[in-house]
Amino acid sequence: MRHALDLARTVLHTTSPNPRVGCVIVRDGLILGEGATQPPGGPHAEICALRDAAARGLSVTGATFYVTLEPCSHFGRTPPCVDAVLAAAPGRVVVAMGDPNPQVNGAGLARLRAQGVPVTTGVCLPEALALNAGFAARMSRGMPWLWAKTAASLDGRSALHNGMSQWITGPAARADGHAWRARADVVLTGMGTVQKDDPRLTVRDVAVPRQPRKAVVDGRLQISESARLFDGEEVWVFTAHDDPVKAERLRRRNARVIVLPGPEPGRVDLHAMLRWMARQHVNEVHVEAGAGLTGALLSAGCVDEILAYIAPVLLGDAYAMVKLPMLSDLADARRFEFIDALPIGGDVRLRGRFADRWQALLSAANPR
Amino acid sequence: MRHALDLARTVLHTTSPNPRVGCVIVRDGLILGEGATQPPGGPHAEICALRDAAARGLSVTGATFYVTLEPCSHFGRTPPCVDAVLAAAPGRVVVAMGDPNPQVNGAGLARLRAQGVPVTTGVCLPEALALNAGFAARMSRGMPWLWAKTAASLDGRSALHNGMSQWITGPAARADGHAWRARADVVLTGMGTVQKDDPRLTVRDVAVPRQPRKAVVDGRLQISESARLFDGEEVWVFTAHDDPVKAERLRRRNARVIVLPGPEPGRVDLHAMLRWMARQHVNEVHVEAGAGLTGALLSAGCVDEILAYIAPVLLGDAYAMVKLPMLSDLADARRFEFIDALPIGGDVRLRGRFADRWQALLSAANPR
Repeated sequence: MRHALDLARTVLHTTSPNPRVGCVIVRDGLILGEGATQPPGGPHAEICALRDAAARGLSVTGATFYVTLEPCSHFGRTPPCVDAVLAAAPGRVVVAMGDPNPQVNGAGLARLRAQGVPVTTGVCLPEALALNAGFAARMSRGMPWLWAKTAASLDGRSALHNGMSQWITGPAARADGHAWRARADVVLTGMGTVQKDDPRLTVRDVAVPRQPRKAVVDGRLQISESARLFDGEEVWVFTAHDDPVKAERLRRRNARVIVLPGPEPGRVDLHAMLRWMARQHVNEVHVEAGAGLTGALLSAGCVDEILAYIAPVLLGDAYAMVKLPMLSDLADARRFEFIDALPIGGDVRLRGRFADRWQALLSAANPR
Repeated sequence: MRHALDLARTVLHTTSPNPRVGCVIVRDGLILGEGATQPPGGPHAEICALRDAAARGLSVTGATFYVTLEPCSHFGRTPPCVDAVLAAAPGRVVVAMGDPNPQVNGAGLARLRAQGVPVTTGVCLPEALALNAGFAARMSRGMPWLWAKTAASLDGRSALHNGMSQWITGPAARADGHAWRARADVVLTGMGTVQKDDPRLTVRDVAVPRQPRKAVVDGRLQISESARLFDGEEVWVFTAHDDPVKAERLRRRNARVIVLPGPEPGRVDLHAMLRWMARQHVNEVHVEAGAGLTGALLSAGCVDEILAYIAPVLLGDAYAMVKLPMLSDLADARRFEFIDALPIGGDVRLRGRFADRWQALLSAANPR
């Protein structure tokens, strides 16, 4: 299964909106065939592994199939994988995670069991889920999986009062941040960051087959048509302000303006935005924004993970990395869990995850 | 040498103001004797190891001596260890760090070499120095080694605006913090913390043979005689305010008032305070204070290491963990180096060290 997970990791940037899946077919400790899900429309991992075995001239009858995700049992752009697996007459099928779609979960496994194939489930479930948290979130709750990236000093300051923020963290941390951008479907920022930094939001430090979609939260539709992130690819601009004239001007820059007003004037309905993204098949959202949008997403409960880069410096009187309302009781602060603490260059990367969100995914992806 | 370092770690709390030293005598891969420095006045590590071998009835002639610190060559409370080592006719002596006192460094090694004993130096130097950074700092620069402990949210907030700060970090982080208190000679806090939390400043979560000295920076000598830290043991109160009446009242609580005014009215001369401590044989100072004193020590360049506990929470609008003057250029921020990133319970501990300070110690402790 670890090898199947490694195969799934090789297609981190190419399967979306499909899940990243790896499959290894083994008999007597020998690998007969292996594969990972190809880009949308192409064969899934099981089919690739079967074809690999066939190309080697090997029969897989009676072999064990290790698959990181339950074989699909429905017709999508490709026929159901479970039929191909059954046709190969496996001796046993081992699965990491189930199909997180609650309407489907277990149907592929049930088909296998009904044909007398022994099935083992839940092997390396957390690792498989970490590769497909976005797919699982979209399938199970109709929202993408969202992480907020921050870069700050040890005392949580992301810029000096004069606006100076480049570079608090070092080149290795920036490159690592780009690797996280690269795996996401959408890189989301706020209007404040566009005005201050005019970022391109492209993935630069990592070789990628496709750039993630760019998106901006711009409550009052103030973004300039000459912002650098308009580079020809379609950019999503979420706003609370319905201004068809401005929207038309932006459309000429290949911006798609989505009007989703929230209850507060000039503020986008962030939950509606994420539901809208899920309907566009967005699995993973990488937020790289200022204290305002990051804080608003946190306050709205839209953040699943925090990806925090910490620089070895104390800045004191400077801008805070996140804007949140004042609390009167520490018990009211929403705690996450640290899942990772890693030196990256001269900086440290801490990853945090809200436990309730992860538990919900685990239970949606727990194969039945 | 790693075993000798482990032995030195067993006496972390008992040798001060002497260094923590371990010694292992080895021949043909067998340990003949081992030992670690005993409390002041007692035998040093080499003597303990020689006695251990003698107690086992083993001769150490021609054996290799691994010592974490250069054997002393002067009469202190005990005779020079180098004489005892030479009397044992070693085949070879391997040393981690030299005596950091620039007047002495190398004298013990020179005595060994003069008698024809081969000497190897610098083995595991950083590990040995980490055990004795305080001793090395006091010997080489006349100031103790000082670390500032902080406990804050991921965004660097140590208390809510209503003062609520217990407990941002969890019990494991607090216990770890007490282990750092325990190894220090002095636990230092500020008057703000005394007023706000009325801390006892004792080591509680760790079994220790002796409590570290408590000390308070109290520029205006406002501390109450009923503060909980006055528990019978002598407490040092550093002040800028010469008030013999108040000082006398505090003396009855076994407080020793040290008047060291700095150039700013009402502010203690922090450098003078540390030099004063070094003259009292203080090797290591653990600072556990609020944003004010921690920031003042940082600004004055008195901090060598940062011991930061980070809780998995974001607090936004709350008190900052450190008060520092506003900067206009990031290049002016004094950067440290992360030397450690470790999950502790649900929190993360990051240790930072100012590289120039460490380099100075390394060069003072590099055996000649």
